[in-house]
Amino acid sequence: MKIALAQLNYRIGDFEGNSTKIIRAITQAKAEGAHLAVFSELAVTGYYPHDLLEKKEFIAKAEETIRAIAVHCTGITALVGGPAINQSATGKKLFNAAWYLADGEVQDVFYKSLLPTYDVFDEYRHFEPNREFRLLESGGRRIAVTICEDVWDEQPTFSSFGKDKIYSVSPLQELSFMKPDLIINLSASPFSHNQEAWRKDILVKKAKSSGLPLVYVNQVGAHAEMIFDGGSMVIGGDGEIRHELRYFGEDFRVVDLGLKGENQVQPVRETTEKIHDALVLGIRDYFHKSGFAKATLGLSGGIDSAVVAVLAVRALGAENVRVLLMPSRYSSGHSVDDARVLAENLGIRYDIVPIHEAVESFERGLASIFEGLEPDVTEENIQARARGIYIMALSNKFGHIVLNTTNKSECAVGYGTLYGDMNGGLAVLGDVYKMEVYRLARFINRDREIIPENSIVKPPSAELRPGQKDSDSLPEYPVLDDILYHFIEMNESPTEIAARGYDPALVTKVIRMVNINEYKRFQAAPILRVTSKAFGAGRKMPLIARF
Amino acid sequence: MKIALAQLNYRIGDFEGNSTKIIRAITQAKAEGAHLAVFSELAVTGYYPHDLLEKKEFIAKAEETIRAIAVHCTGITALVGGPAINQSATGKKLFNAAWYLADGEVQDVFYKSLLPTYDVFDEYRHFEPNREFRLLESGGRRIAVTICEDVWDEQPTFSSFGKDKIYSVSPLQELSFMKPDLIINLSASPFSHNQEAWRKDILVKKAKSSGLPLVYVNQVGAHAEMIFDGGSMVIGGDGEIRHELRYFGEDFRVVDLGLKGENQVQPVRETTEKIHDALVLGIRDYFHKSGFAKATLGLSGGIDSAVVAVLAVRALGAENVRVLLMPSRYSSGHSVDDARVLAENLGIRYDIVPIHEAVESFERGLASIFEGLEPDVTEENIQARARGIYIMALSNKFGHIVLNTTNKSECAVGYGTLYGDMNGGLAVLGDVYKMEVYRLARFINRDREIIPENSIVKPPSAELRPGQKDSDSLPEYPVLDDILYHFIEMNESPTEIAARGYDPALVTKVIRMVNINEYKRFQAAPILRVTSKAFGAGRKMPLIARF
Repeated sequence: MKIALAQLNYRIGDFEGNSTKIIRAITQAKAEGAHLAVFSELAVTGYYPHDLLEKKEFIAKAEETIRAIAVHCTGITALVGGPAINQSATGKKLFNAAWYLADGEVQDVFYKSLLPTYDVFDEYRHFEPNREFRLLESGGRRIAVTICEDVWDEQPTFSSFGKDKIYSVSPLQELSFMKPDLIINLSASPFSHNQEAWRKDILVKKAKSSGLPLVYVNQVGAHAEMIFDGGSMVIGGDGEIRHELRYFGEDFRVVDLGLKGENQVQPVRETTEKIHDALVLGIRDYFHKSGFAKATLGLSGGIDSAVVAVLAVRALGAENVRVLLMPSRYSSGHSVDDARVLAENLGIRYDIVPIHEAVESFERGLASIFEGLEPDVTEENIQARARGIYIMALSNKFGHIVLNTTNKSECAVGYGTLYGDMNGGLAVLGDVYKMEVYRLARFINRDREIIPENSIVKPPSAELRPGQKDSDSLPEYPVLDDILYHFIEMNESPTEIAARGYDPALVTKVIRMVNINEYKRFQAAPILRVTSKAFGAGRKMPLIARF
Repeated sequence: MKIALAQLNYRIGDFEGNSTKIIRAITQAKAEGAHLAVFSELAVTGYYPHDLLEKKEFIAKAEETIRAIAVHCTGITALVGGPAINQSATGKKLFNAAWYLADGEVQDVFYKSLLPTYDVFDEYRHFEPNREFRLLESGGRRIAVTICEDVWDEQPTFSSFGKDKIYSVSPLQELSFMKPDLIINLSASPFSHNQEAWRKDILVKKAKSSGLPLVYVNQVGAHAEMIFDGGSMVIGGDGEIRHELRYFGEDFRVVDLGLKGENQVQPVRETTEKIHDALVLGIRDYFHKSGFAKATLGLSGGIDSAVVAVLAVRALGAENVRVLLMPSRYSSGHSVDDARVLAENLGIRYDIVPIHEAVESFERGLASIFEGLEPDVTEENIQARARGIYIMALSNKFGHIVLNTTNKSECAVGYGTLYGDMNGGLAVLGDVYKMEVYRLARFINRDREIIPENSIVKPPSAELRPGQKDSDSLPEYPVLDDILYHFIEMNESPTEIAARGYDPALVTKVIRMVNINEYKRFQAAPILRVTSKAFGAGRKMPLIARF
């Protein structure tokens, strides 16, 4: 049996655009002699539409679109992800479904059983879980149709409080009683740098334990926080990956399940390269899917803004990136030079706008109110916020979206000014720890020096007062990042983290900084998610808590 | 049987503070001869701890605290809400539980069956639903112990796409087969201006249909977005409300279920008064629970900031509120006068800081970049952002939290400047439509003129360019608010809204404004929720969508 894997980049709620892509793939699959074309989870709406699923006109349009796609399924069949109304008098109003299209019509609908409702996932908010299991008979095969989480009844226990079985049913086990010949999984599995390995582990395990071939079709593309990496696969009943589609790009392949040729898989890549590619896709899709082409950012001469500028140029083109250099009275001369060299290396337009005059006008305005008081973080924040005004003015006047350059380490401990350097439409590095930012810079410079070496090697500084260094108020980044990683991604307790060899007082201090800065993150820009636990939708903490 | 209803204000994660309150209530209940003291849902942790529930040290501390409370339960019993570990090998790791304490120990644990996962609720993220039903026998009574949503198997269908039965099980029906004599409900039911009526409807209906007395204990107090209004009740099997505790404050009452005295209920209040009281509680708890006492805001002379200033004074005291008057070159003379009169009426400190000098310094800094371009919204935003810098400087220097004054109508259509007048730690009016702001102003002035009449009657204006009025770019507020209400709260389609008698083009324009400004709301301050659908956690829309 020949099956087409259609790994497409959808736009949420763009029924016309999404169905055009789906129909084009069906046509191509038919031309290549496929019996069945498989699309990803919620393909017709894009994953994830959130509370648009509560709008009846959205659901009506989704079903109408699926029926229009079905018309193209003659001489070929298709499995297309989309919502389906729950006709029962009780239960949530929708199912997350795989629509089976054949002979020009909708023939059947299969519902998702396991609804991920943790981290960035929120599916029980909208969907009723399926509880009745049956196979799809198509082309003489008995197919176990599953949707994403349905094959994840066992989860990696990366949090130390984790359980590996958070569901009380295993859909594949239920379906295996019915003797299928093939497993198909329609997915929308977002990228994190360790997700690809976890995903292969579980899929290989499921193929092997059932002894059945497994066809896995993932979505690709980004929608603000979540980046979907693609990497659709066909795995043999022996657990071998026979086919693997592209990462971070659309792909399409017709596979003959009966043929045993050479395995066609993707080259192995390092974590840093994956993160680099994910961020480039994340920026590009954020802009293009929201109808914008141009980005701006403040270039400080430091490593974070340098890396963001490079990623922006790779995502949008040098002609669409424009930067501001905004030196203060505390900026070192080399900061402006480094920023200028980078802009020239990238061929992007830059302007230099010193901020001291604006800062001084605020200081004069506040002089009588602040009389007799020492300068403190207030004055530092005025500088960051004056830069924020300049960059937003550029954004407003020319229609550039501001890219935020805060990294995950800073975001965690609140080392940034709300309404100042925390401004931006998208936080490119908000899920990238500082040490990983260094690796990204080295990766970017691997062939030639794009980011000035000086930006990479100089001690990190916000340059908001004379001689300031990040290490004045924070531990050195290798230590800080490791503490943060075990607290945030691994959910370890302070005691467990200290047991890794850190001063308990330092651990307590860092965790306290993370906790008290929840209010800043509440108002932060959306963060491109590249780890298993990003700030944002995936980490919901009470704003006011004493713990 | 005498039962104590303990309606307390908890702080999330403050195990020491919460248990001190709980133990004090148990002691008092015992002194008053109660057999059973009932507390609210998740009392020991405060509702809702969000992802703190994923921290094993948090869960351990919760259980330890419950066992410490149990020691005080001699000669009295108690039902206390708290998380409980799911000991089964499969399923989510926790239950949302009611712990039954007697004879100085934990005697039993009852689990919640219906887990609200919609709007602001997120319980399936952390909890496994209960599926096994049984009664509690205590003091010779057979008690149906339920937790909040367990009695809401039928819901009000306020959204036009809504179903009234979103669950496939009815816990009260299951429990009624076991012939209980009494229903107890431990709740954490947040305020919205229509919630009190819905709550009474459903509780009265459940008491009546079962013919059993129903004891309902709610939490009171606010945690950033959610405000819990209390109003605990005892309802007779005839459906009559026999006891009703305070709204918006702690309360405690020992009730003899056998006695039929005069009903002791709360006075009926109008919607505007409820919203007023909710907002005052929301401000007070936000500050006090996060360890702050002092608020600041910009007073424009308009109605929104005037109402917020009054509410802040009522929540925190005049000595803890300090305001800035920040006139621009476009501010009318009476704006400053109105603001000054209000500040004097309230007895709060005010300073006047004109913004023109700072604004001009930005314009000079941008002159070469903006050469030859006409002024537009960019220059308006610079004014709003310069004010933002001043108010944040005051906040940073003196430790005042900034109160945001954006109302729901503005928040909906994006009529506000990100990093400017959208600044603030808490958005007091973010869930209050403009027309309701007028009603609040009238309510505040009902006995004497606190808010200058001129602030109420003058045409609304942002005063960011000469002669500007809100109605230049928005429909009149009665129209705008009605369209927004049916779109946001009632989830009606554009067609349905137009059928109410509005120009379809206007409806489309307003809805488009709501949709394209999702990116602004993503970075907005937390909003005190007073309607059934507030912006924030209860309305999750994709940031990038085409629908």
